[in-house]
Amino acid sequence: MDLSLFSDAHSLGWQAAQLASPNPPVGAVIEDSSGQVVGRGYTQAPGGAHAEVVALRQAGEKVRGGRAIVTLEPCNHTGRTGPCAEALIRAGIRRVDFLFADPNPTAEGGAATLRAAGVEVHGPYLPHPTASDEAKLPAWSAMYSVEPWLISEARQRPHVCLKMASTLDGRVAAVDGSSQWITGEPARVAVHEDRTRRDAILVGTGTIAADNPRLTARDADGQPFAEELQPLRVIMGTSDITADAAVFATPGRALHLQTRDVHEVLAELWKREVRTLLVEGGAQVAAAFMKADVVDEVQYYAAPAVLGAGVASLSDSENRLGQTIGDIRRFVPRELQVFGQDLRWTLTAPGRTP
Amino acid sequence: MDLSLFSDAHSLGWQAAQLASPNPPVGAVIEDSSGQVVGRGYTQAPGGAHAEVVALRQAGEKVRGGRAIVTLEPCNHTGRTGPCAEALIRAGIRRVDFLFADPNPTAEGGAATLRAAGVEVHGPYLPHPTASDEAKLPAWSAMYSVEPWLISEARQRPHVCLKMASTLDGRVAAVDGSSQWITGEPARVAVHEDRTRRDAILVGTGTIAADNPRLTARDADGQPFAEELQPLRVIMGTSDITADAAVFATPGRALHLQTRDVHEVLAELWKREVRTLLVEGGAQVAAAFMKADVVDEVQYYAAPAVLGAGVASLSDSENRLGQTIGDIRRFVPRELQVFGQDLRWTLTAPGRTP
Repeated sequence: MDLSLFSDAHSLGWQAAQLASPNPPVGAVIEDSSGQVVGRGYTQAPGGAHAEVVALRQAGEKVRGGRAIVTLEPCNHTGRTGPCAEALIRAGIRRVDFLFADPNPTAEGGAATLRAAGVEVHGPYLPHPTASDEAKLPAWSAMYSVEPWLISEARQRPHVCLKMASTLDGRVAAVDGSSQWITGEPARVAVHEDRTRRDAILVGTGTIAADNPRLTARDADGQPFAEELQPLRVIMGTSDITADAAVFATPGRALHLQTRDVHEVLAELWKREVRTLLVEGGAQVAAAFMKADVVDEVQYYAAPAVLGAGVASLSDSENRLGQTIGDIRRFVPRELQVFGQDLRWTLTAPGRTP
Repeated sequence: MDLSLFSDAHSLGWQAAQLASPNPPVGAVIEDSSGQVVGRGYTQAPGGAHAEVVALRQAGEKVRGGRAIVTLEPCNHTGRTGPCAEALIRAGIRRVDFLFADPNPTAEGGAATLRAAGVEVHGPYLPHPTASDEAKLPAWSAMYSVEPWLISEARQRPHVCLKMASTLDGRVAAVDGSSQWITGEPARVAVHEDRTRRDAILVGTGTIAADNPRLTARDADGQPFAEELQPLRVIMGTSDITADAAVFATPGRALHLQTRDVHEVLAELWKREVRTLLVEGGAQVAAAFMKADVVDEVQYYAAPAVLGAGVASLSDSENRLGQTIGDIRRFVPRELQVFGQDLRWTLTAPGRTP
C-alpha cells in the first residue's frame, strides 16, 4: 500500500510527540481544491489546538473544497478544545484521508460525523497497532507518532519502549563495569532527542548505583533541553538511593518507585498520565519488562565493536524468559537508521488483540 | 569520491569470487571510444582468462580507442596466462581506470607498463585495505571483491571473516542449547551463498559436538551447490570427532586441525592456498580469532528477537580480550543489508600497516 500521501503529516506528527501528551501526537496537512498544500499543523500542548485546527488556521479561506490528510481519525468529542470533525465540516473540507482509526469510544466516530455531513472519507489506511496477526502492521513500515498513544489507550498503561545499546556481542559495559562511549556521538544525540519525546524514562536502582546518571535529555553540547522537554525520571527497585544521587540533584521531576513489580510501576505511572515510557536498563530491569510481556517497542543501538565479555544488555539470570528456542521473543522490524558509525533498529511487538 | 564509475565492474568482481581463488576476483568493463559499454568480464577459474581478457574478447574490434574500468590494477607478469597490461595495450585501449593497486612486487606495475605505452592511466582510486589510519577505506563504502585477496596477500595468511548470527542480546542458542531458526530463511540463504565465495569455512570441535553440522553450501531448497562451489570444511580443536560426524559423511573436503592455536591454523590453510576463511563459531573460537587480532571482516546477522539468556555469539570466558572499555575492538561499518526480517551488517578491521 502506498502511504506516501501521509509522509508530510507523518513528519509533522513527530513534532507533536514532544508536547501533545496525554493527547495523541497528530500531524495534519490541508490541500486546496487543486491539490496544493495550504496548511500544515501538529497537535499543540494540552489545552492548545489539535493538528487539524492548526492546519485549518494556516490554510484560511483556501481550505474550501479541499482535502485534509491526518495521521489519526479526527476527534468527535468536546474536550478542552472543540471537536475537529466539526471544525473540518464548518471549514468546507470536501475530503478527509486518515491513517489510523481513533479507538476512543466517546460517542460516534469522527469519520461517521464527517460522512453524515457529506464529506468524502478515506481511512483507516492502517490497522490498529494492537490488531491481531492477520491485520498487523507490516514489517519495515514507518513508525508513526500516534502508535505509542494508540497502544497506551488500548492497553490502559504507558507504551513501553526498551532501549538496548550494545556491542555486536550484546555487551553494554566491560568486565570491570566501564562503559563510556560504546556508541558514538551521533547515536548519543539521537538517544537524547528520543528522551524529549517520552513522558518518562526508567532505570533500575542498580544502574543508579553503577553509573549515577542524570537521566536528563541534553543537546549535543551536553546542555539540558528546556524544562518542558524533560521526561519524568523514574527509578524502580527496592534498594535505597542516596539523596545526593545525580538523578535527584538535577532540576526536574524524579521518582523512586520501591518495587520490582513491572505492572505496579506501569499502573502508578499511568495514574500520573504517563503515556510513553522509555526503559533504559539495566540488564535485569530489561529482562523484567520482557518477562512481563509489556515491551511494545525496542530501540536497538548497535556499535561496530566487540567486547567478548562484560555486562549484557539484557540478562535473565534466573531464566524466567524460558530455557528453549521456542521461548524466543520475536519483534517486527520497522526502521533501520544510521547514526555516524552506529545503527539504530526500531522494532515493535507483533500485533495481538488487546 | 564518486566511485559509481566502478559499480558495474564491482558487481562483476563479486561473480569472480566464487571461482578465481587463489587469483584475485577482478571485474572489468570495456567502453568504446564513445563511452558505450562493449565488454564485461570477470576472472575465471585458475588457468582461465583474467577479467580484462574476458571483457576484451567480448568487445572485439570495438575496443580500439576505448577505456578499461577494472577493480584491480592490470597484472604485469606472465603467470598461467599472459599479462593483462600488454593485452590492453595490444587491443588499442586509450585509457585505464583501476580501483586498487596491485601489491604484487613481481617486476614493475601494470600501470607503469601501460603509461610507458602511452595509455592514460587513472588509479588507484582507493587506498589498500591494510593502509594505515590516515588513508583507510572510508566507513560505509562498498565492500569490493578484491579486498579479501589484497588483505591475504599483504598478511600472507588467509583473509578471516567472522560470522556472528544472533538475537539482539547476542545469543545464538537458548539455555538448553537449542538454536534452530534464529534468523529467517532469506538470511540463511545469504549465509549459504556467502559460503560459496569462501575458500574454507571453520568451526570448533565444540560446534561439531553440539550441532553436528554438514558445513556445506546449500541452495534455498537445502540441496548442495556444485562441488566446485563447496568450501573446504575445517574443524579446529583438540577434542576428537567421530568418523560418522556429518562434516565427514558429506561429500567434499573436510579437515580436522588438532590445535587451538589460531596462527597455526592460518599457516596450515595458507599452505593449502586458502585465501579466504569464514569462521562460523562457536563462541570460544570466535573469541580466539579476536584475541589473535586476525579478524579482517565481521558479518553480523541480527534477528529481531530476544532470548535473555543462553549461548553467546562470542564468549571470552577467560577475559583474554581485556577487562576494561579501553580494550573494546572497533570495526569500520561498511554495508547494511536487509534479508527478510533480519539484517546483515558487514564490517572491516580498521586499516593499519601490514
